[in-house]
Amino acid sequence: MRCKNLTYDKIEITDGFWRQRQELVRSTTVWNVYRRFAETGRFDAFKLNWKEGEPNKPHIYWDSDVAKWIEGVAYMAQKKREPKLEAIVDEVVDDIARGRMADGYFNSYYQQIEPQNRFTVRNNHELYCAGHLLEAAIAYDAATGKGKFLELMKDYVAFIKKVFMDDRTAPYTAPGHEELELALVKLYDYTQDRQYLDLALYFINVRGQIDPPNQGWAQPDARAYEQDHQPVREQEEAIGHAVRAVYLYCAMADLAARIDDPGLTEACDRLFTNISEQKMYITGAIGSAPTYEWAFPKGSSQKAFIHEAFEENYRLTNETSYAETCAALGYALFARRMALLDPENARYADTVERIIYNGFLSGWSLDGKSFFYENAHEIDLGERRLAFAFKRKIHFPITQRVEVFGCSCCPPNVVRFIPSIAEFLYHYDEKRIYVDQYMSSIAQVDEITLTQKTGYPFNGQITLTVSGGTRELAFRIPAWCKQYTLCKNQLPVSTAPQNGYVLVSAEDGDVFTLELTMQVRRIKSNPRVRANRGMTALTYGPFVLCMEGVDNGEELCEVKLVGKEVSIGFDDSLGVPAVFCPAVRENTTELYSDEVTRQSFTAKFIPYFAFANRGETDMRIWVEQE
Amino acid sequence: MRCKNLTYDKIEITDGFWRQRQELVRSTTVWNVYRRFAETGRFDAFKLNWKEGEPNKPHIYWDSDVAKWIEGVAYMAQKKREPKLEAIVDEVVDDIARGRMADGYFNSYYQQIEPQNRFTVRNNHELYCAGHLLEAAIAYDAATGKGKFLELMKDYVAFIKKVFMDDRTAPYTAPGHEELELALVKLYDYTQDRQYLDLALYFINVRGQIDPPNQGWAQPDARAYEQDHQPVREQEEAIGHAVRAVYLYCAMADLAARIDDPGLTEACDRLFTNISEQKMYITGAIGSAPTYEWAFPKGSSQKAFIHEAFEENYRLTNETSYAETCAALGYALFARRMALLDPENARYADTVERIIYNGFLSGWSLDGKSFFYENAHEIDLGERRLAFAFKRKIHFPITQRVEVFGCSCCPPNVVRFIPSIAEFLYHYDEKRIYVDQYMSSIAQVDEITLTQKTGYPFNGQITLTVSGGTRELAFRIPAWCKQYTLCKNQLPVSTAPQNGYVLVSAEDGDVFTLELTMQVRRIKSNPRVRANRGMTALTYGPFVLCMEGVDNGEELCEVKLVGKEVSIGFDDSLGVPAVFCPAVRENTTELYSDEVTRQSFTAKFIPYFAFANRGETDMRIWVEQE
Repeated sequence: MRCKNLTYDKIEITDGFWRQRQELVRSTTVWNVYRRFAETGRFDAFKLNWKEGEPNKPHIYWDSDVAKWIEGVAYMAQKKREPKLEAIVDEVVDDIARGRMADGYFNSYYQQIEPQNRFTVRNNHELYCAGHLLEAAIAYDAATGKGKFLELMKDYVAFIKKVFMDDRTAPYTAPGHEELELALVKLYDYTQDRQYLDLALYFINVRGQIDPPNQGWAQPDARAYEQDHQPVREQEEAIGHAVRAVYLYCAMADLAARIDDPGLTEACDRLFTNISEQKMYITGAIGSAPTYEWAFPKGSSQKAFIHEAFEENYRLTNETSYAETCAALGYALFARRMALLDPENARYADTVERIIYNGFLSGWSLDGKSFFYENAHEIDLGERRLAFAFKRKIHFPITQRVEVFGCSCCPPNVVRFIPSIAEFLYHYDEKRIYVDQYMSSIAQVDEITLTQKTGYPFNGQITLTVSGGTRELAFRIPAWCKQYTLCKNQLPVSTAPQNGYVLVSAEDGDVFTLELTMQVRRIKSNPRVRANRGMTALTYGPFVLCMEGVDNGEELCEVKLVGKEVSIGFDDSLGVPAVFCPAVRENTTELYSDEVTRQSFTAKFIPYFAFANRGETDMRIWVEQE
Repeated sequence: MRCKNLTYDKIEITDGFWRQRQELVRSTTVWNVYRRFAETGRFDAFKLNWKEGEPNKPHIYWDSDVAKWIEGVAYMAQKKREPKLEAIVDEVVDDIARGRMADGYFNSYYQQIEPQNRFTVRNNHELYCAGHLLEAAIAYDAATGKGKFLELMKDYVAFIKKVFMDDRTAPYTAPGHEELELALVKLYDYTQDRQYLDLALYFINVRGQIDPPNQGWAQPDARAYEQDHQPVREQEEAIGHAVRAVYLYCAMADLAARIDDPGLTEACDRLFTNISEQKMYITGAIGSAPTYEWAFPKGSSQKAFIHEAFEENYRLTNETSYAETCAALGYALFARRMALLDPENARYADTVERIIYNGFLSGWSLDGKSFFYENAHEIDLGERRLAFAFKRKIHFPITQRVEVFGCSCCPPNVVRFIPSIAEFLYHYDEKRIYVDQYMSSIAQVDEITLTQKTGYPFNGQITLTVSGGTRELAFRIPAWCKQYTLCKNQLPVSTAPQNGYVLVSAEDGDVFTLELTMQVRRIKSNPRVRANRGMTALTYGPFVLCMEGVDNGEELCEVKLVGKEVSIGFDDSLGVPAVFCPAVRENTTELYSDEVTRQSFTAKFIPYFAFANRGETDMRIWVEQE
């Protein structure tokens, strides 16, 4: 048996940090996103009755926004049905059934705005929308047993297969925004119908093989932006649009886990490693590029703007970080799939942890109502004021979360991710269960029930009870943890971790207690990350910490930490740990000097994900340490 | 008597660092620049016989290139006549006499390319060329007594005065590229004819007062680029094109020293302070902006590209520094003028020293043949390779000096600056002589002869002998110097410095010995200079030091200095001091870690000005210090 993921439906998050957040999605976020999507016409678009001159003109990616919201509703329904939410979904499904074309095609933008142009422009998110609708349909079918949506989507997939793979009548070969590929693997898993795996594999294999005709985006560099510059098995470096890239890599890893294809496995490993060792913010966020223009050779009239994309190795500027919430989420999905390809290595679960507590979670406000699309990794209002005064054309990420964006991919990704976060808890085979994340929960792995009780991530105390069977357990010792004790029925386990996992046998009735000592760590970047040279970041447990101006004053560039003392507290209003460190603020009127005035103060750090919940203020992760 | 500058013609540089460089200009640089200018048609342009279709089409700023070269020839002639060089100059003068228009106008570009458009586009360097021709004519007349050139230029100035000040028939009011203003003050000083001072003052006063008609560059922001956004007395911050700005400020300071105008004096002080406390590289270079596009309000079709300009306060990025050689020179000229306005403060001479040994001198190769227009403040070839691979549209300064540029303002500025560098040595009034710079030299201040003998800048030993009269001396103790001894006739002088000067009486026969202890200093930037946060620069005497890859290996971002030991040596091949420090190179494959591999080595530093004389290699001023 290959290693499998324990799916979210086998696990109940019972308490604590993530339970609170799941309840927040159910009580607030799912409705807030629904209202904003309804107000902006995203639901009405499915009725296909928009007319020129009316507000809320349908947009190419709207279907995907609603689809992800439906997927989130489905995940919640799997735990507890919500008739009001299902009624909304059922109406959308009825709209699709009524509105779809005779050949199975459905796309609310193309059918209403330019029906003659369907399947002509690869960058127009058409197959991306199809992929998200398909994922939603599978999840909805699984949670509710209502098969209508999935049947509609199967028809659509059959038509896509005919156009792209069988007849090859479309002017391009593979989606410009990847997503459908991983959805097709899900459909294969759900139906065990091999044709869906074949179609996914076709889209993967054709990538980088066939020059598309020259059509706007289909320039050589635009192909790199869409990961179509090389055959996937030859790709060495993660480049181009970050969300597209990691969605592609997810499908590659999915396929590599299901077919025997060492070249694909090696490519996945290379790309994962490239991101984690050269292209990832400390928060797990990826895709550092704000908008910039590509430099074509002199004299060329070509023009292309790059944004939301990977930049060069080690280029991870903080104040202009794009770091899209969806990209962080996609990288967690990729890491999860890598854990199944390479099950004995905890680095993938470490990466997931880095993302879910930091670079992904920052995208969502503490009150559950608003979102970051881009996630700042430094806010320096003084610097911005100067740049604005100088009319510098520079893209800074926004400083406050908002309820909806024109391009609103991130909010519904929160709606679908949080309810299914238990997906990241365990992977297993018939001999061993890997305990990847620590959340209070009850999980069913075959005949075995695993009960976790923990104050994680606020403390490192974990109790795990096994009942119903016998299997080896592999407890992840997080990479951040330098000291821990693991006891089995109160007796210490002395086995050393291998690749981040401590292996220990378990049988019915065993009680394991794991204590991960949480300390403040002082982290340096690889020196080649020029943006962070000379700087230190603090972490506490799984949290990357940051300073905010509201606690520490503006102009945080003046702050220097002195000594290594810390004290740990808790910020009740934010509901997060707070870390206090001795620091000085350095100022001088001189530009260059070997003397500087220093005022001592106590710097307060909070977890990065909780930044920007108290009004517009400065924020800084990387700080000078004496 | 107001404080006066001791002009270069009263001083002979006799030996040492600057004497060698003056000889290099005479033997090599003046001829090299001549040949390259002749080959590119800059001298032929004065004959006004270029025809469409021929190579070397005249350019709007060519007159100024030749003018600055002539000015340099004049300064050399003042010391030693060179008939071959004078023959070239005389031919140019004859060409102007033959070619100029009946009204006195001369401009080789406009007369040949678009004669109908003279004095219509303020940004086209027309009055800038006139200013440089005028400066050249004054210097040539003073050095050789040949009056023809100056008479031609006086006619031209009379015509300019008529068009711009008397009749106001030009569609703009003041030069778009300032320079003529300071040349007019020189003409006033040379002739004592008040009308030239009035014309300079008119150009200064009209600036920022009259909205020009809408003509391309004459947008509000372009006016800021040309320092025409506000009346000069209201200007608070140095903005826009850096060379234009400092040339303007020179004229403002010149006027403030000659008329009673506290508002002008205060504006000069504000602008000088703004640059020195917020806008200057540690090398004294200014104007950090590579090309960037101005962000006009959304929907605006206006477009303007900013380059060679001041950026926001504290924005001094190293790897993209523009830091034009001419701008550094212009800032030295401005500092010199400020010393005459505020004679008792050594900060101006300190600034001059910072510039002439660092950010200006770096613009000229050690062999005297080639030049930097832009002066890199960091060369990171690894970063560039990555950026090029990613087709990032980013302007990095060139890594190797070249013999001529399309826009070749900097090479002839070296030709005129080095022969006249003695201008910076002394300023004085009837009571006191300020010793501003230390160079082996003989100077005549009224009846007093001052003889300096020194190994400066390689060591801090200075002997100054006074003969022929009695006056107070003010010895500058450089801001970098923390320890010194001054003796008068071998007896220590115990007076403490005031504003950087030690005052001591001197009479005929007195011998002063000053020993400035040169140490390696570790300098930090103001914390608001985000580019240098966490970094340290080393200086030694007046030199800012840098590391080069050729000595220390590539990827200098990995280098960290450990401890504060240093040893001082001398690099014979470069002819400069070398400083050796214990260091480590940090590498890691991990992106974020609290552990890092360190290899110890001895880092070698050389003076910044000597960088890029041994092939293309990395260079770094700011380095992490443990």
